[in-house]
Amino acid sequence: MMKAVCLLSGGLDSATALACAKRDGFQVYALTFDYGQRHRVELDAAARVARQLGAAEHRLFRIDLRAFGGSALTADIEVPKDRHPALISSEIPVTYVPARNTVFLSIALAWAEVLGSSDIYIGVNAIDYSGYPDCRPEFIRAYEQMANLATKAGIEGRRQLRIHTPLIRLSKAEIIRLGLELGVDYSLTHSCYDPVGGLACGHCDSCLLRKAGFAEAGVPDPLRYAGEPAP
Amino acid sequence: MMKAVCLLSGGLDSATALACAKRDGFQVYALTFDYGQRHRVELDAAARVARQLGAAEHRLFRIDLRAFGGSALTADIEVPKDRHPALISSEIPVTYVPARNTVFLSIALAWAEVLGSSDIYIGVNAIDYSGYPDCRPEFIRAYEQMANLATKAGIEGRRQLRIHTPLIRLSKAEIIRLGLELGVDYSLTHSCYDPVGGLACGHCDSCLLRKAGFAEAGVPDPLRYAGEPAP
Repeated sequence: MMKAVCLLSGGLDSATALACAKRDGFQVYALTFDYGQRHRVELDAAARVARQLGAAEHRLFRIDLRAFGGSALTADIEVPKDRHPALISSEIPVTYVPARNTVFLSIALAWAEVLGSSDIYIGVNAIDYSGYPDCRPEFIRAYEQMANLATKAGIEGRRQLRIHTPLIRLSKAEIIRLGLELGVDYSLTHSCYDPVGGLACGHCDSCLLRKAGFAEAGVPDPLRYAGEPAP
Repeated sequence: MMKAVCLLSGGLDSATALACAKRDGFQVYALTFDYGQRHRVELDAAARVARQLGAAEHRLFRIDLRAFGGSALTADIEVPKDRHPALISSEIPVTYVPARNTVFLSIALAWAEVLGSSDIYIGVNAIDYSGYPDCRPEFIRAYEQMANLATKAGIEGRRQLRIHTPLIRLSKAEIIRLGLELGVDYSLTHSCYDPVGGLACGHCDSCLLRKAGFAEAGVPDPLRYAGEPAP
């Protein structure tokens, strides 16, 4: 069985991407980063999702991006709340973490090389997203080209490395429908950037995109938000 | 004054690359990785070199690549000794650390973005080197293209990021001559993969390449090797 390394944050998108890797027939090696994020509650979510979806292995990798800061997720900068939907996709918000996906993919690449895997899954999405530069298709294609020159496999002419982005062209509602088909239990996931007492805030960009996605998909969101009764 | 992030291992090449960044007029932000390497003695060398060459700041970043292993530098695999010079450049040795330069450049990219810097220096060399895939010019160019799509600067059409590789086409002897011109004190550097009681072993690929380089440059190597009297 072929192995794939799957980036797993514990959020809705990465859980769905992991389910896609399983659907595609891979043995899944889930990789989660403890990077000093404000929303550490997602680390527990990642462990639950990896277990529910049957990952062969789940690694938690520590890399402290607070050393550089520069983001509302890794420094003492306020997470924006209740932004207008049109604004969410039109400018790069302060929740952008400098070079985060580049760093995460690079560590995934290192693990993939050691595992003898040529496949990496990442749940980036360029439709209902926060305008991050490192979620765009052109970034992923350039990353793939670079990665194929970076490792032994590239020199030895073995199977080309592929970065799989099964969600990149889907709306949030389409991602949710796909995940439900593939058996993702979204009650285990956690998308919020700024949890309140362990519960999703319901007002950050990530919560707003999630709520709008469930509404559009016509499916109830199983997540409990702060200040709301349990669903 | 423009800022540049310089990868600094504490070895001969990265010290010279840092001196090149100074020569090119940059304020230097030196970045060293404690990645669980066998030759941790290079961390002290990096601190000495950063001080001697006048870096504006020197950061030590911890990222434990032993989590994946797969290399003689990060796992319990023997470092090859006294390999024939022809062999050193013709096959990828077990000292290759999977995706190491990709990971290091990605973290440098994160710091550069936070600093507002568009320039990264790396002392890779494709002439007298150990055959690592991530030291080749084609890898660096692909990395640069990817990096220009990865960050805010790429989206906002600001100055393009450049990965500077001042040593890539130089022989080890040429690197040493260049460094001496630029005032590098090579007695502070440390190149060995497998130090013996804090001294360079004199027999690993890195020591062999260094010794041959000094011999060809016609300059005495100021480093003391294990089993030899102080120079």
